[in-house]
Amino acid sequence: MRDANSGTDMYSILCRDGGAKRARLVTVHGTIETPVFMNVGTVAAIKGAVSSVDLEGLGTQVELCNTYHLHVRPGDEVVKKMGGLQKFMNWHRPILTDSGGFQVFSLAGLRRIKEEGVTFNSHIDGRVIRMGPEESMQIQSNLASTIAMAFDECPPSTAEKSYITESVARTTRWLVRCRDKMRELNSREDTINPDQLLFGINQGGIYNDIRTEHARQISELDLPGYAIGGLAVGETHEQMYDVLDHVVPELPSDKPVYLMGVGTPANILEAVDRGVDFFDCVYPTRNGRHGHAYTRFGKLNLLNAKYETDERPIEEGCDCPTCRNHSRAYVRHLLKSGEMLGCRLMVMHNLWFYNNLMAQIRDAIEKGCYSDFKKHILESMEQGEN
Amino acid sequence: MRDANSGTDMYSILCRDGGAKRARLVTVHGTIETPVFMNVGTVAAIKGAVSSVDLEGLGTQVELCNTYHLHVRPGDEVVKKMGGLQKFMNWHRPILTDSGGFQVFSLAGLRRIKEEGVTFNSHIDGRVIRMGPEESMQIQSNLASTIAMAFDECPPSTAEKSYITESVARTTRWLVRCRDKMRELNSREDTINPDQLLFGINQGGIYNDIRTEHARQISELDLPGYAIGGLAVGETHEQMYDVLDHVVPELPSDKPVYLMGVGTPANILEAVDRGVDFFDCVYPTRNGRHGHAYTRFGKLNLLNAKYETDERPIEEGCDCPTCRNHSRAYVRHLLKSGEMLGCRLMVMHNLWFYNNLMAQIRDAIEKGCYSDFKKHILESMEQGEN
Repeated sequence: MRDANSGTDMYSILCRDGGAKRARLVTVHGTIETPVFMNVGTVAAIKGAVSSVDLEGLGTQVELCNTYHLHVRPGDEVVKKMGGLQKFMNWHRPILTDSGGFQVFSLAGLRRIKEEGVTFNSHIDGRVIRMGPEESMQIQSNLASTIAMAFDECPPSTAEKSYITESVARTTRWLVRCRDKMRELNSREDTINPDQLLFGINQGGIYNDIRTEHARQISELDLPGYAIGGLAVGETHEQMYDVLDHVVPELPSDKPVYLMGVGTPANILEAVDRGVDFFDCVYPTRNGRHGHAYTRFGKLNLLNAKYETDERPIEEGCDCPTCRNHSRAYVRHLLKSGEMLGCRLMVMHNLWFYNNLMAQIRDAIEKGCYSDFKKHILESMEQGEN
Repeated sequence: MRDANSGTDMYSILCRDGGAKRARLVTVHGTIETPVFMNVGTVAAIKGAVSSVDLEGLGTQVELCNTYHLHVRPGDEVVKKMGGLQKFMNWHRPILTDSGGFQVFSLAGLRRIKEEGVTFNSHIDGRVIRMGPEESMQIQSNLASTIAMAFDECPPSTAEKSYITESVARTTRWLVRCRDKMRELNSREDTINPDQLLFGINQGGIYNDIRTEHARQISELDLPGYAIGGLAVGETHEQMYDVLDHVVPELPSDKPVYLMGVGTPANILEAVDRGVDFFDCVYPTRNGRHGHAYTRFGKLNLLNAKYETDERPIEEGCDCPTCRNHSRAYVRHLLKSGEMLGCRLMVMHNLWFYNNLMAQIRDAIEKGCYSDFKKHILESMEQGEN
């Protein structure tokens, strides 16, 4: 029997530059070159009318989908009947699904946490849903993503240390159950992707002692990858970087590291320098829909009146489908008029910007000039609007 | 001095098949093969996140934009500064602008109609706007469309015959002022498109005697094209076809005929048989956004539960970007989830369907089998959902 969740051959570090790693993860759905930014397609679609076909032209390597949302609608059983997420979305590159944990703790209504799992009400129709490690693994197996995430608790960053301690211990016990359940699911005849990978998640709020102890414990499970969760939820950037400085060295050096839900271009540049491989964030899509465009000279607010007759593309020299074809003035007009096309053009530009930033990061690490690159691009982005 | 609005060389009829014409209109922005369906991009964008670049792939020949909407936002002066609509939208094929009349009479707030024009309140911010023949021509000249429409009054189809008589007489006087104003605008040095064409509009409700008399009057002005307005606003299909049967023979046989705001595939098939060249309608975009897809077997309502796990494309054998890449099940899921991508995929399919229907119509006329083609396609569409 194959067991995709043992062994480390699939991940290889091509080179290092300071703390930054240029690596490669070979999966059954294709190779992922890291550091990589995953594009968030919550309900099996990028918000802003961007399709899987568009993503191929935007340099996207991995699409991230949300387990909780897909369980609620259209239902993971429906996705399974359709042959899994790849076939459902017509996306033939890797997909990472989150565990549903974050949404359960942030979106769902009244919930009760017990050892076996969480009971809560759907945010769509209020119906009672029970989700624990086994349910999350079953749903993700039905979705047939490339990488599944462990089901964890995401306590609020303001929680007491005593609560965090108790919560992290439960998350560790849940991780063992996730691993066992996935092993069983991957061995079933009717499983769409029997090579589905499981990544564990480190928690512990901003308490470095809890974080590092937890990192050591989950590392012993020898999973194909590890994520750092519960960050970018209200703590300062410095606190986040401090957690990375403590946690990354405690995770296996021969496994990919994923910093969940992060973040700004500056966050990514700093986290890459601390050894992180994978990122995801709704900023490029959400900010795009609200008129904020990322450029190497910082963010532009396209709703600003000064762009009313600005014939330049959002970013001069940018090779994205938006900048190749449309002016700031036109995009601004669409946004002001509430036209969906405005959202689409903004989101395509922003995803291209993030994906292209990662390509530049990979290139700089390969050339051994990551430190200079980081300094240069951070200074450029500080310049502000042009 | 050039005068695009005289002479008939630009329009040529390639062949006839019964009452149907296969014709060609050569414009400064490219050649239009008729019969043609113009795709409606109200505020210089197709609703549903479909861009000018997408339209090139959907077989669109002419984009229609709305003068009233663009005058209100972003303002026709802004569009003029940006080099006209073609440059603003990045669309390099012909554009037809309506006169603003229809929106003034259907969308705007309290209005007063006088001989010089109409005074009304903007539907966006309530500010007072005055629009008459000269203002409409000035705005359309600023927009620099390929074809400008005359400013007419669109009385409700329920209006008394005495009111329609008075209104049509005013519309005739307004048409003369439109022609004179456009002549003057086209001769100005700073006019972006000095070859802008003016189409006159026939009105008269469902009163054939008023309609035919009006058609004869406006034909005398020898404009480059004529439209039939004030239909598809509540009268029956039979009443509409009856008006066409009376009016088209009264319009110049060597000029294109445009049936405004029409319509369903069946309406178009019938009107082509009565000699109409140009069509426009919001059905493919509006119905698409609401989950209704056009196919050669009639309309599908993608929100129907029976499509939940339907792996087929919206229309089997369809070569549109949606059907080439996505299943009914996926499109349905996107629509149910309120994802913009669902609207985009639906609108692209529907525009493709309409554009492709027109290509089939042109082909059938060329082959001299239009009558058989019409019978066959109408029967097929009657079959209903498959």
